[in-house]
Amino acid sequence: MLEQYDGYVIDLDGTVYRGKQMIEGANTALHGLKDQGKRLVFLSNRGNISRRMCHEKLTGMGLDIRPEEILLTSTVTGMYLRERHPGEAVWILGEQGLAEELAAHGVPLAPKPEEAAWLVITLHETLTYAELNEAFRAVRHGAGIIATNGDRMFPGDAGDSIDVAGMIGAIAYSTGKEPDVVIGKPSRLMAEAALAVLGLPPERCLVVGDSLPSDIGLGKMAGMGTALVLTGSSTREDAAASEWKPDYVLESIQVLLSL
Amino acid sequence: MLEQYDGYVIDLDGTVYRGKQMIEGANTALHGLKDQGKRLVFLSNRGNISRRMCHEKLTGMGLDIRPEEILLTSTVTGMYLRERHPGEAVWILGEQGLAEELAAHGVPLAPKPEEAAWLVITLHETLTYAELNEAFRAVRHGAGIIATNGDRMFPGDAGDSIDVAGMIGAIAYSTGKEPDVVIGKPSRLMAEAALAVLGLPPERCLVVGDSLPSDIGLGKMAGMGTALVLTGSSTREDAAASEWKPDYVLESIQVLLSL
Repeated sequence: MLEQYDGYVIDLDGTVYRGKQMIEGANTALHGLKDQGKRLVFLSNRGNISRRMCHEKLTGMGLDIRPEEILLTSTVTGMYLRERHPGEAVWILGEQGLAEELAAHGVPLAPKPEEAAWLVITLHETLTYAELNEAFRAVRHGAGIIATNGDRMFPGDAGDSIDVAGMIGAIAYSTGKEPDVVIGKPSRLMAEAALAVLGLPPERCLVVGDSLPSDIGLGKMAGMGTALVLTGSSTREDAAASEWKPDYVLESIQVLLSL
Repeated sequence: MLEQYDGYVIDLDGTVYRGKQMIEGANTALHGLKDQGKRLVFLSNRGNISRRMCHEKLTGMGLDIRPEEILLTSTVTGMYLRERHPGEAVWILGEQGLAEELAAHGVPLAPKPEEAAWLVITLHETLTYAELNEAFRAVRHGAGIIATNGDRMFPGDAGDSIDVAGMIGAIAYSTGKEPDVVIGKPSRLMAEAALAVLGLPPERCLVVGDSLPSDIGLGKMAGMGTALVLTGSSTREDAAASEWKPDYVLESIQVLLSL
């Protein structure tokens, strides 16, 4: 397998870490790949943190990587807006990390909701009704809707918790408008951004992740190899029942090097 | 017109009052109807207040009416649960007024979300992510969903604001489950509850309200007469363009007696 792939597209939550805890052997596996000259990109549907925040977290866990090796949906949303809608002002429904990442890409913030060309929605764990209403007013005044990702739930500290889909639903049901763009995996946008970082053709790349629709789906659609890890949201039975059949099923990222 | 109708089904927001302000002449018109022996019922899609709270507001504005003449969606939700699902425990996503009204109908509250047979959703202007997650968990553990109403927006102090649809959307998108029941106008449930209070056949009743889909729609579907007032959300042009053509269009409730 290692001979077949020069580039590795690696998911974060459920693949490299769970919450604040590194998955056993992840460090060794990832540094092992680097030592063999493999190229890595970390590709995550997290849109509520910035690349800087994520890099800080990963280096804090002992991973020796560069910020440019991280692509979050906040990052790719920033790239998308900078390339396709330069200078257009956005309103954010979500956490500060998204604002930081959009600022890093030179995306201007609208001074008030009514002046935004785009509403960008991401996870917001401290949302208020007032903030929902500001987002509502942006759309009522003509802003298009971009969601960093469409995930329904994530495993939170107090059990399964509402993910970005909850914020999208609040706006979609009250305005009658669905998102124009959903940036997150398994989108072509995320696959293309990952391949651009790696600088390799898709068939030389392997996606490693715990989500069948997001990670394995993205890999299949983009023509990459796919490896499901069982340290997150999916079981071996899920894989057997899924429309997306991974090329490999690994107990964890730890065994990546030993294949 | 007054000879034709013995019962009056009267909307509140935008028809009798706007915010904290009585609409000019509403008091005189309503007491005039009463003086002529007409029967009244106030029928509102508000689900976040109790009948007691609404009665207090109306009497505080000088209206001499009985609590039994008020039917809110919180009231009809209480009736619905008491009659069709007696003893089944509910979890509430919404404000205290709904809890008070359900308690008045003997509907038990579940001690935690996971034990609820029903999630009842209404407007919640102080909602938190934690509360959304509790509601999410109720549905993930099998609770059915009842919405007091499905209105998208209402005119708030700071402009148009997200109504119950926003809370429904957050839960529907994150759980993948739509409401099993929406209690509010123009439902048959609300029409039947109003006719039961009036004790009259529908053709002897006139709906008076400012919403074409909610008020005029309910009246048409139930076989009542319909009068649109122009003191709320609809204009004469809206009425002309609507699939629901009111029998009468009134500048305001004030002119009801003079027809």
